[in-house]
Amino acid sequence: MRNIALRVGYDGTHFAGFQRQAVDRTVQGTLEEALTRLTGHTLEELRFAGAGRTDAGVHASGMVVNFRTTKGFGDETWVRALNALTPDDVAVHGAREVDEAFHSRFSATARSYRYVVLARRTPDPLRRFTSHWEPRPLPEVPTMIEAFADLVGTFDFSAFGSTGSNPRSPVCTVQRAAARLDDDQLVFEITAQSFLYHMVRRLVGTALEVAKGRLSKQEFAALYREPGPGGFVPLTAPASGLIFMSATYPPPYAGLNGPF
Amino acid sequence: MRNIALRVGYDGTHFAGFQRQAVDRTVQGTLEEALTRLTGHTLEELRFAGAGRTDAGVHASGMVVNFRTTKGFGDETWVRALNALTPDDVAVHGAREVDEAFHSRFSATARSYRYVVLARRTPDPLRRFTSHWEPRPLPEVPTMIEAFADLVGTFDFSAFGSTGSNPRSPVCTVQRAAARLDDDQLVFEITAQSFLYHMVRRLVGTALEVAKGRLSKQEFAALYREPGPGGFVPLTAPASGLIFMSATYPPPYAGLNGPF
Repeated sequence: MRNIALRVGYDGTHFAGFQRQAVDRTVQGTLEEALTRLTGHTLEELRFAGAGRTDAGVHASGMVVNFRTTKGFGDETWVRALNALTPDDVAVHGAREVDEAFHSRFSATARSYRYVVLARRTPDPLRRFTSHWEPRPLPEVPTMIEAFADLVGTFDFSAFGSTGSNPRSPVCTVQRAAARLDDDQLVFEITAQSFLYHMVRRLVGTALEVAKGRLSKQEFAALYREPGPGGFVPLTAPASGLIFMSATYPPPYAGLNGPF
Repeated sequence: MRNIALRVGYDGTHFAGFQRQAVDRTVQGTLEEALTRLTGHTLEELRFAGAGRTDAGVHASGMVVNFRTTKGFGDETWVRALNALTPDDVAVHGAREVDEAFHSRFSATARSYRYVVLARRTPDPLRRFTSHWEPRPLPEVPTMIEAFADLVGTFDFSAFGSTGSNPRSPVCTVQRAAARLDDDQLVFEITAQSFLYHMVRRLVGTALEVAKGRLSKQEFAALYREPGPGGFVPLTAPASGLIFMSATYPPPYAGLNGPF
């Protein structure tokens, strides 16, 4: 069987998340349906996987997925045929044949997310599905930008997420974290090998408390530098502002890093 | 009666255009409904008007409208109350009391539009409602950028639009015209005192023919510099890429130019 990687974008607004569910409309279910129609393979044969499992309402511009097939289509044929078979809120941007060992989720060494906050007095109808509108004054944005950059490193992020049903460690290594004010948008970008459940949205929700002047930079840092048995912070920013930007793979698969 | 100007933004996707219609959902109808609920005035009393009458699917970030009222609310009260009464695809960004003579349409000395073309091999689900996707190669973009800038001046634009049922002149003065390639987006910006029906969309649709190498810069220029009895060019770019950016008013109303 060939192993094909795809780069995929989607508008998460009308999906109940990435991962296939029995009834609800999902990104995985939508792509699997297109693939079974195109290839004639069963779901078991396809062995579809994705680099990240985004929640309901979360978007992607560079999600990487992979599947198995006997079909020997060229890269452009996969792209065109799948775009003809998928609805308008999913698009396939590129296809690449990869070796048997590649797994879009387990081979990934990092995932990058972006979160957009509209820092405006009034809402913007044209960005309502792709941002989170924060109408309150944010006097401490410079402090928040510093606090967010301090996230780089290896820390226990228990305060910002659960490990779900997996017996996983709450320790994550953040490789890059940056926030900036771009006109009326606060743009957060963060890269880590893995994230806890809801971690990016909780980090942004808590960072906004710093921007509002309700939480100091030191208090924000203490949440992950001196973790204690305090439970989660209850500040999860809405799904609409979050977008999965890209996955990163080691040298044999470096061709999948960046647009393909 | 007081005369109040509002700056309004909307996502035109689910509107049958700006102007009130008997049955279909329109921007004017939606704003008038909120205003009648808020003020108790009749439509006749409100005398609602807008700077431009955008078509179905066309958006706005800085549409200016005005209406009459006996209510003496402060600017921020108008904004907050109307945003509470309007659906998510319309927002009121600002309010200003103006003198009796002001009319958002007839007082305007210019209107500015932006048109966004996605120049990409694959569609982008996240921008599908706010752009026009052009997958074909555009080898002559630099020529097209020059051709579009040449639109500045006073010309007979009969080839690019109709005057509708009004006995208006097809001569328009374009005050500013610029196109640029910004990453994967072709962004067109054009300002004129008035436009013919569908004129911006026909100009962009025809400019894209220049970008594709199907029409020369000279042929494009001849359409409005040497107008003949040739009928319209049949190339109307889709509504989704067009956004009404702002209206311009003379000195007594200069406070309405730019965000308010």
